[in-house]
Amino acid sequence: MTELAAVKAALKTQAVETPSWAYGNSGTRFKVFAQPGVPRDPFEKLDDAAKVHEFTGAAPTVALHIPWDRVEDYAALAAHAEKRGVRIGAINSNTFQDDDYRLGSICHPDAAVRRKAVDHLLECVDIMDATGSRDLKLWFADGTNYPGQDDIRSRQDRLAEGLAEVYERLGEGQRMLLEYKLFEPAFYTTDVPDWGTAYAHCLKLGEKAQVVVDTGHHAPGTNIEFIVATLLREGKLGGFDFNSRFYADDDLMVGAADPFQLFRIMYEVVRGGGFTSDVAFMLDQCHNIEAKIPAIIRSVMNVQEATAKALLVDGTALAEAQAAGDVLEANAVLMDAYNTDVRPLLREVREESGLDPEPMKAYRSCGWAEKVVAERIGGQQAGWGA
Amino acid sequence: MTELAAVKAALKTQAVETPSWAYGNSGTRFKVFAQPGVPRDPFEKLDDAAKVHEFTGAAPTVALHIPWDRVEDYAALAAHAEKRGVRIGAINSNTFQDDDYRLGSICHPDAAVRRKAVDHLLECVDIMDATGSRDLKLWFADGTNYPGQDDIRSRQDRLAEGLAEVYERLGEGQRMLLEYKLFEPAFYTTDVPDWGTAYAHCLKLGEKAQVVVDTGHHAPGTNIEFIVATLLREGKLGGFDFNSRFYADDDLMVGAADPFQLFRIMYEVVRGGGFTSDVAFMLDQCHNIEAKIPAIIRSVMNVQEATAKALLVDGTALAEAQAAGDVLEANAVLMDAYNTDVRPLLREVREESGLDPEPMKAYRSCGWAEKVVAERIGGQQAGWGA
Amino acid sequence: MTELAAVKAALKTQAVETPSWAYGNSGTRFKVFAQPGVPRDPFEKLDDAAKVHEFTGAAPTVALHIPWDRVEDYAALAAHAEKRGVRIGAINSNTFQDDDYRLGSICHPDAAVRRKAVDHLLECVDIMDATGSRDLKLWFADGTNYPGQDDIRSRQDRLAEGLAEVYERLGEGQRMLLEYKLFEPAFYTTDVPDWGTAYAHCLKLGEKAQVVVDTGHHAPGTNIEFIVATLLREGKLGGFDFNSRFYADDDLMVGAADPFQLFRIMYEVVRGGGFTSDVAFMLDQCHNIEAKIPAIIRSVMNVQEATAKALLVDGTALAEAQAAGDVLEANAVLMDAYNTDVRPLLREVREESGLDPEPMKAYRSCGWAEKVVAERIGGQQAGWGA
Amino acid sequence: MTELAAVKAALKTQAVETPSWAYGNSGTRFKVFAQPGVPRDPFEKLDDAAKVHEFTGAAPTVALHIPWDRVEDYAALAAHAEKRGVRIGAINSNTFQDDDYRLGSICHPDAAVRRKAVDHLLECVDIMDATGSRDLKLWFADGTNYPGQDDIRSRQDRLAEGLAEVYERLGEGQRMLLEYKLFEPAFYTTDVPDWGTAYAHCLKLGEKAQVVVDTGHHAPGTNIEFIVATLLREGKLGGFDFNSRFYADDDLMVGAADPFQLFRIMYEVVRGGGFTSDVAFMLDQCHNIEAKIPAIIRSVMNVQEATAKALLVDGTALAEAQAAGDVLEANAVLMDAYNTDVRPLLREVREESGLDPEPMKAYRSCGWAEKVVAERIGGQQAGWGA
Repeated sequence: MTELAAVKAALKTQAVETPSWAYGNSGTRFKVFAQPGVPRDPFEKLDDAAKVHEFTGAAPTVALHIPWDRVEDYAALAAHAEKRGVRIGAINSNTFQDDDYRLGSICHPDAAVRRKAVDHLLECVDIMDATGSRDLKLWFADGTNYPGQDDIRSRQDRLAEGLAEVYERLGEGQRMLLEYKLFEPAFYTTDVPDWGTAYAHCLKLGEKAQVVVDTGHHAPGTNIEFIVATLLREGKLGGFDFNSRFYADDDLMVGAADPFQLFRIMYEVVRGGGFTSDVAFMLDQCHNIEAKIPAIIRSVMNVQEATAKALLVDGTALAEAQAAGDVLEANAVLMDAYNTDVRPLLREVREESGLDPEPMKAYRSCGWAEKVVAERIGGQQAGWGA
Repeated sequence: MTELAAVKAALKTQAVETPSWAYGNSGTRFKVFAQPGVPRDPFEKLDDAAKVHEFTGAAPTVALHIPWDRVEDYAALAAHAEKRGVRIGAINSNTFQDDDYRLGSICHPDAAVRRKAVDHLLECVDIMDATGSRDLKLWFADGTNYPGQDDIRSRQDRLAEGLAEVYERLGEGQRMLLEYKLFEPAFYTTDVPDWGTAYAHCLKLGEKAQVVVDTGHHAPGTNIEFIVATLLREGKLGGFDFNSRFYADDDLMVGAADPFQLFRIMYEVVRGGGFTSDVAFMLDQCHNIEAKIPAIIRSVMNVQEATAKALLVDGTALAEAQAAGDVLEANAVLMDAYNTDVRPLLREVREESGLDPEPMKAYRSCGWAEKVVAERIGGQQAGWGA
Repeated sequence: MTELAAVKAALKTQAVETPSWAYGNSGTRFKVFAQPGVPRDPFEKLDDAAKVHEFTGAAPTVALHIPWDRVEDYAALAAHAEKRGVRIGAINSNTFQDDDYRLGSICHPDAAVRRKAVDHLLECVDIMDATGSRDLKLWFADGTNYPGQDDIRSRQDRLAEGLAEVYERLGEGQRMLLEYKLFEPAFYTTDVPDWGTAYAHCLKLGEKAQVVVDTGHHAPGTNIEFIVATLLREGKLGGFDFNSRFYADDDLMVGAADPFQLFRIMYEVVRGGGFTSDVAFMLDQCHNIEAKIPAIIRSVMNVQEATAKALLVDGTALAEAQAAGDVLEANAVLMDAYNTDVRPLLREVREESGLDPEPMKAYRSCGWAEKVVAERIGGQQAGWGA
Repeated sequence: MTELAAVKAALKTQAVETPSWAYGNSGTRFKVFAQPGVPRDPFEKLDDAAKVHEFTGAAPTVALHIPWDRVEDYAALAAHAEKRGVRIGAINSNTFQDDDYRLGSICHPDAAVRRKAVDHLLECVDIMDATGSRDLKLWFADGTNYPGQDDIRSRQDRLAEGLAEVYERLGEGQRMLLEYKLFEPAFYTTDVPDWGTAYAHCLKLGEKAQVVVDTGHHAPGTNIEFIVATLLREGKLGGFDFNSRFYADDDLMVGAADPFQLFRIMYEVVRGGGFTSDVAFMLDQCHNIEAKIPAIIRSVMNVQEATAKALLVDGTALAEAQAAGDVLEANAVLMDAYNTDVRPLLREVREESGLDPEPMKAYRSCGWAEKVVAERIGGQQAGWGA
């Protein structure tokens, strides 16, 4: 197989998981702008997600968020997904939208609230069993707003205890993916604020516990690809929540704010063996003002383009320049791949896979957007609260 | 008058404006936690604000937010305020919560939306006439989320045009206060992102247009007191929106995150003549998890303490050390004031003004919190949307 | 002329000024690593700069830094430049390396130090007269490290006074370019920390005073292209100091850290008419660990590539999408230009201009690097101190 | 023992290590301003350090930096220290100032350079043996400036290998303290950029390896006290490099930029048992423009004041408020301690310890500054390079 053929083959295997909540309405604390045609239940979200997969061929799984995606019959939901050509991906827990969680969930000072939170996490594992999902993705809004509000160390103890109970419940082949975030919604401390904290907990829990890197959850100036390389080296990178940001956790389309950073991240993934391992590539985005389905298609394509560039890096030339200490040449080898226009290559890949080479155009002309606007009348549009 | 007497006299004149919306519910995009006893209409907000003034003696005015505080009869609202011992302060416009404003308001690409936004601002001036308010405070959520989404320069043109029309409408003794903000809710560009932009517009509008400094609206590392000193030197500091932040626009209690910064800001205010001029000292905070009225009392006290320390700086000693280039001594003079415990002094000031020396305790024991929890049953609690 | 021909024609006019100091040694506070072959005087720096122009055809002028480039006979220096095919560009002042400047220069509390600083600036104008330089570029290291150290407002007064004296001295066709910088080497306040401060001073000085944007001199999260668009709208953008950064003022090769940002900046330059006006495009970089001449060639090429992409933006399609409020399509139009590989186009442009299409390779094989290493033996290598 | 007596007793035990290099000249990449009277060799640095201890009673040890403090006879140096009333503290390695280290030291792509770096570290352990020092403090300037320059993961492998060899060499009672730093002097990647990386390496090395927190080495918005609490919980906090910063690694006097943050850090130290354990409290500062010895005295006092406030926190009241979820009260308990003026208490502590209650004044009037200015004529002043 020629090198280009190998790149194409790799690209054909790429899978990006899309999040059910990205198909619903979202916004900032200032306003959620509703959009016409937005799904009203998890089944309709899967219908939309299936369209993304239909046109990209690269979005075969859909992450759920509990309780937003709570249904009576999870087996029926999973069957609906399969009928549409997709599968259920990670189960995302939510311990931040109940009034009880004002001061935290799994780290709350009150044991009763902690119990409630852990029970919710255990319910999520039940849903994994029911849907065949592999990954339990945990993000905690826990933290404090004011110095002194609660004891930092005690909260870590409570976190460790709660995680351990949930970890024990995991079945064969199931994983716990622990996400970290610098700030928001808590402003003074966050109980899992950085990769170091997530890593330390996962290390103690065991090999089923892995760290998730959300690309929008870092302090300014943080080198995310360093973290990716380090976690891969430690065998602790469970997956990504992809999105992009200019300032905080903006949750914009991945690759929109800093496409070069996305390329560097994907380069480290490829370099560290993460592309062919169990690393989960998930989107976690909010399309506050733009149309949702095409934004998600664009996002999947952005990941594909960054990956294609990463795969095109001439590893031999790079290693030689690095070994020789030739700073400019080593950088040039990397930039050569980045500066390549990989869109023609990806069009070929799609055509070879029986897809339309232009997913955005194909989606726009397929009539789905008009159809759902016309049909999804009445009911309650899905959003972060439902 | 001794120097200490002068400090006390100054402190007795200090007035901090509290915002009506801080008495209602607020939150993050993740969750708004409702609190019992929260006001259900602008009249009840004024009742709460009057309690803050009753116990601090330093919060005589209340800012309104339109449409959240829209009433049939503004004269009646103003009369209600006066009956409670307070007055109506700045009128804050809102051009970010209508579906039409998805892509902006006064900077929107569509002239019809701009017209609607300007009309709202003109309505706010009507309300100023009706309530006797001096200041129109303008903060725009306008901006873009993605590069290319709209034309940066055209948006500035639209902004200038809209502001000019509103400026013309201002009556005798009325002012336009233009607020800037780095980011949120827009993530790529904000149309008034920094003091320079606000200053440039105000300069062209005329002397009734002044800049507002919200202490949470800057990039990390920004020296806010430098901006304060510069705007005072330029005669363009209209007022403050006080709050505090650890990361972004956290809207925590002023002085809670960095009390030393608040002191430095108040020092520049005093140094630059802002304390005895028309600079408006307003709070703009969100008490997402803490009790609202006591949090506002604490905030007013924090401003008082920072001001007391600023007033205590030995100006002569400072000027001497600065002139001599004695870095350590000049810094020591400033720190000496900061390290002073001014709480006893403020207790004296309150007692001399006929107030309880301990506003927090006095409020906690007055029964108001219990009363409103018991009485404010039913109806719709006030929040950012109402 | 076809559109592509117009783009090529524009690219052929592009001129990037290279800084004499980038050819000398530089480093961090931790270490300056000397490189073999580095120039030992301003004449040798010009020799190197001429090589950059020879191979790129786009670097016709060279900025000087006084006193690092002080010579007996400036006319002789200018003549040397011309003989090599380049010209003298901006004159950069230096008021930060004399022991007298420990507490500042033009803002120093001591009038004698201020006098010395202003005299140095006037000397720089003399050198402009002698070399035919158009631009006086002013960057001040002035500021304070500790709160209280000096009076913020008085320092502004001193700054204004000193600038006014120098401004008066400017001759016909000469300009003063005022640069701002967030921090470093001062850590608490910087006397010209942001574009607003520079703008306010330039406004008062008059139309010969213009603002310089150094792309590394902003707080994290600052939208630089917004500043560019705003300054162009105000008629106050004098030029750029190009470089790139991951964290602070890293002074890396322009386009190396965030090529998408450089493209967005160049797009606003083109959009705002800055490309065909008097805006000066200067590099200000430190090649601490990489070979200097090729790093500068690469930097010039990076500016060319970003410019080519900016020129390729389909303005009609963009304006239509923006007017229609089509967020995704407007962004897509911009990204389409960014994602284009413009290297073939630039190779054509070079060939049509009689240049080697591959400047880096051409330089590497021309023997200059080996020649200067062999010949520049003995003497004192140029650096920031000489 | 009353509670206040316990606080006083604790304060009397406090020891802050001062760094030999802070007594020498330092600066930024722009300029090192020399100061009169600065030491010319390690013996004179110890003389100065002894003065700090003489007047504070709280600075009994002095950190050395190799090779800046290299001497023929380390036993003689240790004896000199003891004669002056102080002892040798941590040995700090330096693998960033040799030309060989342009691309790194222990992570360099060339094995010969790595060998040289490791040999230097082993030499430092020899010096520990000779001086009786307990701690080897390792900070590496290693990193890269440009994407692609070197392989992130291979550099981690080399780091681990080098550290392991040095760790093996440690004797009984000796420790390796590994410091992390976000950026500078490397701008793209740093090989130990955050506490997570340092922690992961220390965990593998063993219990003699501990993490050092330099308070200036974090991204903006990082909650340092969270890291402190977490490392104490993990048993991996080896010590501090104290200083303060407004923007990057400014190395200002500790407590000068954000005294509230220093208090919060010391509170977590006390809370987590770090005050009475082996945690080393070291200064690492640069007094670029201020007089060095008094700046260090001030710094020691700032640590004492923050510690006194931390010790004064009413733990019972705090725990009660935290358990009750009373956000405002819990915060108030903490702030009550912070707002206390502890300077009278510390004056008492000093008097009870036989010291002058005002160290700054006592030092200023003791004549040492004048004496060293007069006597230290000729020779080469110590600085970062010597």
